[in-house]
Amino acid sequence: MNDPESTVAAQDGEIGLVEYHDFVCERPFEFECERVIPSYQIRYETYGRLNASKTNAILICHALSGDHHCAGVHSLSDRKSGWWNNMIGPGKPIDTTRFFVICSNCLGGCQGSTGPASINPVDGKPYNLDFPFVTIRDMVRAQKVLMDHLGVNQLRAVVGGSMGGMQVLQWALEYPDFVRAIIPMATTSRQGSQTIAFNEVGRQAIMRDPEWKGGDYEQGEGPRVGLAIARMMAHITYLSDKGMERKFGRRLRGEASGGLSFDAAFEVESYLRHQGQSFINRFDANTYLYFTRALDYFDLSATHGSLEEAFSGMKARALIIGFTSDWLFPPEQNRMIVHAMLRAGKAASYAEVKMDFGHDSFLVDSPMLYQLVRAFLKEAAS
Amino acid sequence: MNDPESTVAAQDGEIGLVEYHDFVCERPFEFECERVIPSYQIRYETYGRLNASKTNAILICHALSGDHHCAGVHSLSDRKSGWWNNMIGPGKPIDTTRFFVICSNCLGGCQGSTGPASINPVDGKPYNLDFPFVTIRDMVRAQKVLMDHLGVNQLRAVVGGSMGGMQVLQWALEYPDFVRAIIPMATTSRQGSQTIAFNEVGRQAIMRDPEWKGGDYEQGEGPRVGLAIARMMAHITYLSDKGMERKFGRRLRGEASGGLSFDAAFEVESYLRHQGQSFINRFDANTYLYFTRALDYFDLSATHGSLEEAFSGMKARALIIGFTSDWLFPPEQNRMIVHAMLRAGKAASYAEVKMDFGHDSFLVDSPMLYQLVRAFLKEAAS
Repeated sequence: MNDPESTVAAQDGEIGLVEYHDFVCERPFEFECERVIPSYQIRYETYGRLNASKTNAILICHALSGDHHCAGVHSLSDRKSGWWNNMIGPGKPIDTTRFFVICSNCLGGCQGSTGPASINPVDGKPYNLDFPFVTIRDMVRAQKVLMDHLGVNQLRAVVGGSMGGMQVLQWALEYPDFVRAIIPMATTSRQGSQTIAFNEVGRQAIMRDPEWKGGDYEQGEGPRVGLAIARMMAHITYLSDKGMERKFGRRLRGEASGGLSFDAAFEVESYLRHQGQSFINRFDANTYLYFTRALDYFDLSATHGSLEEAFSGMKARALIIGFTSDWLFPPEQNRMIVHAMLRAGKAASYAEVKMDFGHDSFLVDSPMLYQLVRAFLKEAAS
Repeated sequence: MNDPESTVAAQDGEIGLVEYHDFVCERPFEFECERVIPSYQIRYETYGRLNASKTNAILICHALSGDHHCAGVHSLSDRKSGWWNNMIGPGKPIDTTRFFVICSNCLGGCQGSTGPASINPVDGKPYNLDFPFVTIRDMVRAQKVLMDHLGVNQLRAVVGGSMGGMQVLQWALEYPDFVRAIIPMATTSRQGSQTIAFNEVGRQAIMRDPEWKGGDYEQGEGPRVGLAIARMMAHITYLSDKGMERKFGRRLRGEASGGLSFDAAFEVESYLRHQGQSFINRFDANTYLYFTRALDYFDLSATHGSLEEAFSGMKARALIIGFTSDWLFPPEQNRMIVHAMLRAGKAASYAEVKMDFGHDSFLVDSPMLYQLVRAFLKEAAS
């Protein structure tokens, strides 16, 4: 994983060329729901070098529609780099000259790790809805198997936003002796009613699309309309009123300014249509169902009796980051996390970053965010 | 319209039995888009009695999914009364012992007034997408024809929330000498980017449903799935995070608490599914397209150069009411209206009501809201 080709491009603060790796685990995996799959694959990427004592690893956890490719480019002609390339790289806040950075596609996913679209070795057919229900904890436990496979002895930090932030919290509870520090961002300890509601509309758009076929669609086909609708709606919840107003306002598309129509007349409409369309080319509808359900069932306070109780065994130092304009997992939900940690006597800090980009703020270029991550990692993960 | 049967039940503060009326106008209507229909029908209800000078009328304007039936019941076995029955009735804030209250289904609607599902007299077929684009101003101009038909000499007040509030504003600008007072609630003078975005997702859900058939579906059929999805999503935007948390939280449905599933496991899910399902039985998908487009194109500042300019000719006294938890047309958008009126030297007041029910707060039982409406009507509409 540390081949010379991939590090040779690590110049000018960029990771450069990276490639993914597939870890195939031939041992069974038992899900929280007690169902078992006989074997599975986890697709992952790593950047930087694992040190001799194997103690400088940082794990990045991705959000609902993210994947293992969080930094660098897969080919030198790529116009788009990994989804957190602004955060991860040589000299960047998550510094690949210091840390060995790992990111894997979650179990249940559709970008290389075993999920509903994978072939069930028992009958040679895709699992589809026969895939076991996945929880955030299942995702984390599969990541731990990967850490063991990579020979990592501890995680200096686990970092992620949104669904990734839930995994970060779960890591600190599940493997308290393995994790030194955590940075959950724009997340929650307990999925609320409104967010469950949005997920449900997305699932209904998918499941009531006749092309869904009870989940048994052919790969490359499937509920493309329903998935696009789900994505368009969800995308609004990732932005903010103010951010959309500034980015799009009521601007009309050039060709549409002539008259009233049901075509995409406003720029925000064509932007959303594009978001929906590009999503269906890269994401599996059944994984969307599974992952949104994993979000919905995430509730640390219910699982542990109380949130304070949930964090009672945590040993990691924590920096929780909320964003002022995030209305999907708003600041108060992030503050709830740090307050519970503090009540449980843990070393936890909270930072609220004023940004107008809504929930997606954690992905956006922000010197303040960079400085928070850099300083915390310097102190807590050294 | 003031038949003895309907007033006889006006006891105990309730209007009681009411019936609707159809006004058929055989004169053409020219829309803002300059297209013309040769004749049209407006369905409406009235409560109370028009006084001798015909000066005690109050017009109620309905929201996107509302209709002309805003108070009373259509049959004594009705379990559900008109949509603003808490606000309108004998002794209620909009007092039918004092005022002659009128509410009509908007032009372009699907509950009795001429709209896309109506028969085009020219070819004997439903208009469907051949119906002219409707604007808020078109709705108001059709209401004015109805006022003239009813012999009303002035409107003591025009009152409405959401899309109804837009009509209220338009009334004050379009017919300054006809309107004495206005109460727009939970509304905006200019549809913002986020709201256009939500509308667009709803329209895409409808238009990409194969049963939509370019708008040429048979009545009773059509894009039922798409319309239900649009409604479910929109319904979330009518509530608030806090309100949903209190009403539903993460409560599981009795039968669902056993295990993980894609069925409606949480109460909020079955609530939303019910909302979607009941909507498709009463609403036409093409009207949904037309009305959301009317909302999107509403922008008084662009139409008039500036918002201050828009209100420059207004003569009505105004009470604008915003609701703290409304994130669809949030308080600041309501405040913008009153600030522009004040800059234009108009008699305008603003009240912000602290309620947790989100955008739909204006429909909810609230002594504070009642008192505001009652006091303003007493003073400004006497």
